[in-house]
Amino acid sequence: MIVVMASGASKEQVEHVVQLIHDMGLVDHVIVGTDRTVIAAIGDKRQVDKTRLERAPMVEKIVPILSPYKMASREVHREPTEIPFGPSGATIGGGKVAVMAGPCGVESKEQLLATAHAIKKTGATAIRGGAFKPRTNPYSFQGLGEEGLAILAEAREQTGLAVVTEVLSEEEVLLVARYADVVQVGARNMHNFRLLSAVGRQDKPVLLKRGFSASLEEFLLAAEYVIAAGNPNVILCERGIRTFEDYCRNTLCLAIIPAIKRLSHLPVVIDPSHGTGHAYMVPDMAKAAVAAGADGLIIEVHMDPEHALTDGAQSITPAALDELMKQLSGIAKAVGREI
Amino acid sequence: MIVVMASGASKEQVEHVVQLIHDMGLVDHVIVGTDRTVIAAIGDKRQVDKTRLERAPMVEKIVPILSPYKMASREVHREPTEIPFGPSGATIGGGKVAVMAGPCGVESKEQLLATAHAIKKTGATAIRGGAFKPRTNPYSFQGLGEEGLAILAEAREQTGLAVVTEVLSEEEVLLVARYADVVQVGARNMHNFRLLSAVGRQDKPVLLKRGFSASLEEFLLAAEYVIAAGNPNVILCERGIRTFEDYCRNTLCLAIIPAIKRLSHLPVVIDPSHGTGHAYMVPDMAKAAVAAGADGLIIEVHMDPEHALTDGAQSITPAALDELMKQLSGIAKAVGREI
Amino acid sequence: MIVVMASGASKEQVEHVVQLIHDMGLVDHVIVGTDRTVIAAIGDKRQVDKTRLERAPMVEKIVPILSPYKMASREVHREPTEIPFGPSGATIGGGKVAVMAGPCGVESKEQLLATAHAIKKTGATAIRGGAFKPRTNPYSFQGLGEEGLAILAEAREQTGLAVVTEVLSEEEVLLVARYADVVQVGARNMHNFRLLSAVGRQDKPVLLKRGFSASLEEFLLAAEYVIAAGNPNVILCERGIRTFEDYCRNTLCLAIIPAIKRLSHLPVVIDPSHGTGHAYMVPDMAKAAVAAGADGLIIEVHMDPEHALTDGAQSITPAALDELMKQLSGIAKAVGREI
Amino acid sequence: MIVVMASGASKEQVEHVVQLIHDMGLVDHVIVGTDRTVIAAIGDKRQVDKTRLERAPMVEKIVPILSPYKMASREVHREPTEIPFGPSGATIGGGKVAVMAGPCGVESKEQLLATAHAIKKTGATAIRGGAFKPRTNPYSFQGLGEEGLAILAEAREQTGLAVVTEVLSEEEVLLVARYADVVQVGARNMHNFRLLSAVGRQDKPVLLKRGFSASLEEFLLAAEYVIAAGNPNVILCERGIRTFEDYCRNTLCLAIIPAIKRLSHLPVVIDPSHGTGHAYMVPDMAKAAVAAGADGLIIEVHMDPEHALTDGAQSITPAALDELMKQLSGIAKAVGREI
Repeated sequence: MIVVMASGASKEQVEHVVQLIHDMGLVDHVIVGTDRTVIAAIGDKRQVDKTRLERAPMVEKIVPILSPYKMASREVHREPTEIPFGPSGATIGGGKVAVMAGPCGVESKEQLLATAHAIKKTGATAIRGGAFKPRTNPYSFQGLGEEGLAILAEAREQTGLAVVTEVLSEEEVLLVARYADVVQVGARNMHNFRLLSAVGRQDKPVLLKRGFSASLEEFLLAAEYVIAAGNPNVILCERGIRTFEDYCRNTLCLAIIPAIKRLSHLPVVIDPSHGTGHAYMVPDMAKAAVAAGADGLIIEVHMDPEHALTDGAQSITPAALDELMKQLSGIAKAVGREI
Repeated sequence: MIVVMASGASKEQVEHVVQLIHDMGLVDHVIVGTDRTVIAAIGDKRQVDKTRLERAPMVEKIVPILSPYKMASREVHREPTEIPFGPSGATIGGGKVAVMAGPCGVESKEQLLATAHAIKKTGATAIRGGAFKPRTNPYSFQGLGEEGLAILAEAREQTGLAVVTEVLSEEEVLLVARYADVVQVGARNMHNFRLLSAVGRQDKPVLLKRGFSASLEEFLLAAEYVIAAGNPNVILCERGIRTFEDYCRNTLCLAIIPAIKRLSHLPVVIDPSHGTGHAYMVPDMAKAAVAAGADGLIIEVHMDPEHALTDGAQSITPAALDELMKQLSGIAKAVGREI
Repeated sequence: MIVVMASGASKEQVEHVVQLIHDMGLVDHVIVGTDRTVIAAIGDKRQVDKTRLERAPMVEKIVPILSPYKMASREVHREPTEIPFGPSGATIGGGKVAVMAGPCGVESKEQLLATAHAIKKTGATAIRGGAFKPRTNPYSFQGLGEEGLAILAEAREQTGLAVVTEVLSEEEVLLVARYADVVQVGARNMHNFRLLSAVGRQDKPVLLKRGFSASLEEFLLAAEYVIAAGNPNVILCERGIRTFEDYCRNTLCLAIIPAIKRLSHLPVVIDPSHGTGHAYMVPDMAKAAVAAGADGLIIEVHMDPEHALTDGAQSITPAALDELMKQLSGIAKAVGREI
Repeated sequence: MIVVMASGASKEQVEHVVQLIHDMGLVDHVIVGTDRTVIAAIGDKRQVDKTRLERAPMVEKIVPILSPYKMASREVHREPTEIPFGPSGATIGGGKVAVMAGPCGVESKEQLLATAHAIKKTGATAIRGGAFKPRTNPYSFQGLGEEGLAILAEAREQTGLAVVTEVLSEEEVLLVARYADVVQVGARNMHNFRLLSAVGRQDKPVLLKRGFSASLEEFLLAAEYVIAAGNPNVILCERGIRTFEDYCRNTLCLAIIPAIKRLSHLPVVIDPSHGTGHAYMVPDMAKAAVAAGADGLIIEVHMDPEHALTDGAQSITPAALDELMKQLSGIAKAVGREI
């Protein structure tokens, strides 16, 4: 950490800060510049709240140097992590781009099984679908619960697709993990630290979505919660952030792919459905994601979007997915991957 | 809801949308304008996902008309809600502005009791302090747990201050509610719908913080979750949003006060500590909040901010609070309130 | 436009709004719904400020229906516009993706000519470089002025590359247009309506950058200014927006490509250099842009980024551009384009 | 500036950065920490682009220490600047809060003179009104031009109010300055560096509005442009920023008042009209601004907002202003000011 003293800080004020640095168990290093004195505080005390030094007289600002996460960091784990998932021996984080597709919510057995078979034909690896739905509106459809999980498991049995599904509550983690191949933590729960710890205490890989206004550092710290609780298999999923834009429901910046790959060893999946909110944008953003180096895609697919119970506006049809997969294949090849 | 057809939509395309509107159980009303046909869908189906109509051919956009919340709305409940809380018969939402103050976290019995006595002298109504801390960093101080709750209860006994404290998990709701006068749901849990329902099933008033990128509509829907579960006593707390600004940790727009008062009957509290992130800004924003019509303030106060375990940068001292209370009193009077 | 009346609006209040609609020269259409009365105002008066109706008693909100731009719109001009530029007969907006590359600023004749030759070899179509630099800091390098323009023209002569360069002031429009093949209006001037009109009164194509917090509608209205002044050859350039993110200098959402193509007939260029701010992200975002359907790229390239006078952090080397062009070619092919 | 090396940087890589620092004419100071080596670059070279060091191998990030502005800074000018303006000897930046009020645009002589007289009675100091209007839509009302300026001057003669009006173009600066007491640069031109220099070369005080997504540093650099060109009398005006919020047209965070007062000596004016976009929010935000320490307010007032040519939605009536002034007076007193 660097403490920048305000212009005109006295010797005593600098010494006071040095004392506070010692109180934290850190070593100081004072540099007197032309306009400012700055004080480096040396040592690794990631758990200490160093910003409080800002309250000392004539401190202008505090600049942190070390990232607060460790196990999610590429410094600690230089090689990319490749995570196996599902019944078919698929992996994510290696040379092959994984495609996870399916409806927002499991609406019925017929709907889900038909979708699963259609998706299977496109070459996708996994089926996604919510049995427990986090709904902004308390009066909206909340999902089929365990019945939905059982339907997903049946789809796996019939198609060999892996199952990705969301968990909303610590209490349901074990239930969901019993049926799922990948346990999803949704964007609205990225800061639900109790849930993060709970999914960290089970064995299935965790698909962790970035909160829609979480910083990248907070996102990696959320992954750190899961890893620190015992589960190293975290798949990071970007689904767009909230901004002033109104042409899309979320703003999906794919530069986060190289940014994550620089900072972390964990695989990155892009969700172009929530990431845009409009079906007509989904194929272009899926293609862009693969071109930018994404390790996977998670796409909302519905047999009849005009009648979907949830997320119809951003769901594409199985036919559109099939068409998309062909173009994705060419792009993957152009960037040295396969799909 | 209004469906705007794209320019050039055919009669069949309009009829297809009309059919989809009927499928939702709504009544259509078609208006042919100079450049566009628009179709109003009449009826109250707040739980149906109407945005899926966007997927019909030649639909340009969907414009919702009705707000999705009901019980949190001023339409349903015209008069402002005044909520009693704590041992002393205080209320929030009436003529008197409530001031809740205290440390970010309960660090020790000595610290908390000393702070409580100092705060009591300033004329504040409640002590705040976290026993369960939601921490972005898994390695940081996580709070004293039930021991912290017991310390808060002792502070209430010694001072008569009401106790406001946060709950992080459905499982701990009853425990926290046993000690607290007001149960707080933090910004990071505003979208934790299971927790919202759980605090709705107990009796203590709920201080609900807005998520740092939740829309106002989502905020009121979160309140609706609590009310729908059985607890009408929700206090809305604005603590700033995340934006590109870097002079403050959060961007605290007080225009939300008149906005909420127009839409809802629930009381509004402002948190100038999290809302700015810097102690030197807290008094000015506290004054501004009272001038703008806030029903209450929640302010972080620490005896020794330079050594606070958490949130030192944004904590003011009891002496600063005391000075502030005097100015707040004059402002409250100027806008027809008291403090 | 749709006027939504508040719940409980009286007959007189509705009639008052109807009268105000008539005052605007529009026709009203009243719909009485279950919870709300809404009033459609029919007619095309794009120049009238209709939002003032919000001030009438018991008006809840105003919902605009028509977009305010016309000539930039796909409604008026159904086919994509293909714009020829430069000495070599290149076009933008057709099947071939145009690549414009070069330094942020023209620093010297040697630098620029060497860069131009290196860029030419990679297969790029145009050289970019600023002779007039808009600098946030008044004490920074402001560009070489007309001398810089002459150097750019010499580079064109030597290499056959088209010249893209920025104009800052109405007074310099004709000067810049004399040397340039494409006149650039920078993001900071997107709302400089006098400059927009001035570039609309000359003949060279205009590369118009989106302001870093302009809405898409404002962006298209800025293009409308240029077209309305007489110049139909506007190339839209996205360069990212300002958000809370800190891993990138700007947030570059490529979903704007399909969004623009849906609303407008104008070609779209992506600037991955300003769009990310970091050289290591530029290749991935360039690839993503082509995959998402961009008509062109504009990329900052410098022979020696560590010593660049401006924008060194986001400039790639000619060697990196060369490597990138190969991958772009494969991606273009996969999406049915060439480069 | 501080250069943070990535973990694992070699001695040669550190030496390379040291060399680059020397190339900039700065002195290096290397600190070897437990996890990172950081290199301080000492010396005041505000005009050099130091971020290019990010391109050197194994550099993790660059942290600037010095602010790039000087004359706008409180370091250089410790006392607050008090600026006299208008015919009546009023000042801004001292103990008295200045209120500037008037219509968005000058629509006619009758309208403006009637408004001026009504405003005068409320105790306001200045009349605002645009003769040259920056319009997002090229087909909208663009103002009366010089005729509008003459009307404003007549209002001054009749009432003694100072005249505040906007300039859009370098070419019109002298014209506008001939009629105005305060020359306004609008938010859309805050980055129009040529215009900033031009208003810096004339003598009337300049009201500089913050761009709606300019950082505070960019805002102060824009003021620096004006001061560097010769005019020290810059009044900073905050009018809100663009965010994801939809309950207001802009997000107006008043914490910028203490932030500016900490960094700069220039007076701060708040614009609650553009800052919210809705008339019903204006009084509460005006009160909040005075409570937070604003030196002035600029408020849109129209005799008949329902028929205003521009900005009707956010204009209050003279009667509402009169009512507001009474409450502002009490608040000003409570914070040690007068109005």
